[in-house]
Amino acid sequence: MKKIPLPVIYRLSYVFDLLNKLEEGGVERVSSTELGEYLGQTAHTIRKDIHFLGIAGTAGTKYDIVGLKKLIAGHLGFSTPKKSCIVGLGKLGSALLDYTMAIPQDIFRIVAGFDSNINRLETIETSIELFPAYRIEETVKRMQIELALITVPPQQAQEAADRCCSGGVAGLLNFTPTVVRPKNPGVFVRSVDITGEFRICAALAFTNRLTTE
Amino acid sequence: MKKIPLPVIYRLSYVFDLLNKLEEGGVERVSSTELGEYLGQTAHTIRKDIHFLGIAGTAGTKYDIVGLKKLIAGHLGFSTPKKSCIVGLGKLGSALLDYTMAIPQDIFRIVAGFDSNINRLETIETSIELFPAYRIEETVKRMQIELALITVPPQQAQEAADRCCSGGVAGLLNFTPTVVRPKNPGVFVRSVDITGEFRICAALAFTNRLTTE
Repeated sequence: MKKIPLPVIYRLSYVFDLLNKLEEGGVERVSSTELGEYLGQTAHTIRKDIHFLGIAGTAGTKYDIVGLKKLIAGHLGFSTPKKSCIVGLGKLGSALLDYTMAIPQDIFRIVAGFDSNINRLETIETSIELFPAYRIEETVKRMQIELALITVPPQQAQEAADRCCSGGVAGLLNFTPTVVRPKNPGVFVRSVDITGEFRICAALAFTNRLTTE
Repeated sequence: MKKIPLPVIYRLSYVFDLLNKLEEGGVERVSSTELGEYLGQTAHTIRKDIHFLGIAGTAGTKYDIVGLKKLIAGHLGFSTPKKSCIVGLGKLGSALLDYTMAIPQDIFRIVAGFDSNINRLETIETSIELFPAYRIEETVKRMQIELALITVPPQQAQEAADRCCSGGVAGLLNFTPTVVRPKNPGVFVRSVDITGEFRICAALAFTNRLTTE
């Protein structure tokens, strides 16, 4: 299959989400212009993205929502949920675990959690399996886990990532403020730094006031 | 005060975090090269950023950590925590509330929570004040809240943002997958789409396998 560029994957995964919502609202067909407006993109970009899936569209084409969803799901692998794990069950890890267990698990599903603190593992109430951190590699391999959410303290992030890579994950979602590098070249890393965002917002709120008052 | 460009604010807020960690580790002085290495930036960029604070440095300059922290805190307003609120106390909102209450509240502090579902407000256990959503504007004004975390369902995001803007917030941190536009031009918006990140990771895990196997 032809390799789809990263920005296209990014936009198509948002198109998929949008199609879900339109379908829930009873809409059956949608144009590239309408999709583009919602996503802040031009209709042309959206048509080019959809062209990667093998559908040629011209300005004014209305896509069938059910058909387009199926096509995107096939190309991006949304038909079967990806098995995922959370590494680090401190404050952020526990919050994310609660959150992910509460939303639809149709695209990814948390199946295991890890923490280096065994006492902590005993106090967490959850329906997923929990393991001490030294068992990451073996468990990821055995359960065929594809994605790992890294929510350990920053100084442990690289080691946690290395263990997940050794176990064979395809990707890491790094929630720590540290740069994490994949041990194997085929593994991707995406970073979401929530506390960093809070800090930047605080700085912007302050500097904004200075320049607008 | 001279306006500091957004990317500089961004990097300096990371430098601040890094200086905190170095200080905790007992380090007293640090060079632009060392700072740049940690942040994935050149030493030259870091020196230019610090120059915005009024310190001219040349290659090899070692900055005094305590002094540099104080300077950044002064320019970015990190000396007093920014009063913040969470709008939307569903799954993600509750998870973020628990998380933010558990970390140091030195840079921002959650002081109020809002939800349109009054029954839900009664079931949440927290030390902050909770209010129904129709009281956002009045409460933001009265408590002088500067930042709002938007964690409502996507279709309610713009209205929630509008109410916070009317109350006088300086900035919005949008955790919904929707584009939110500030009602007043002086208000900034930053977006963090956690579920979108999960979806993109699932897509990358799938397409990665296709191209690397």
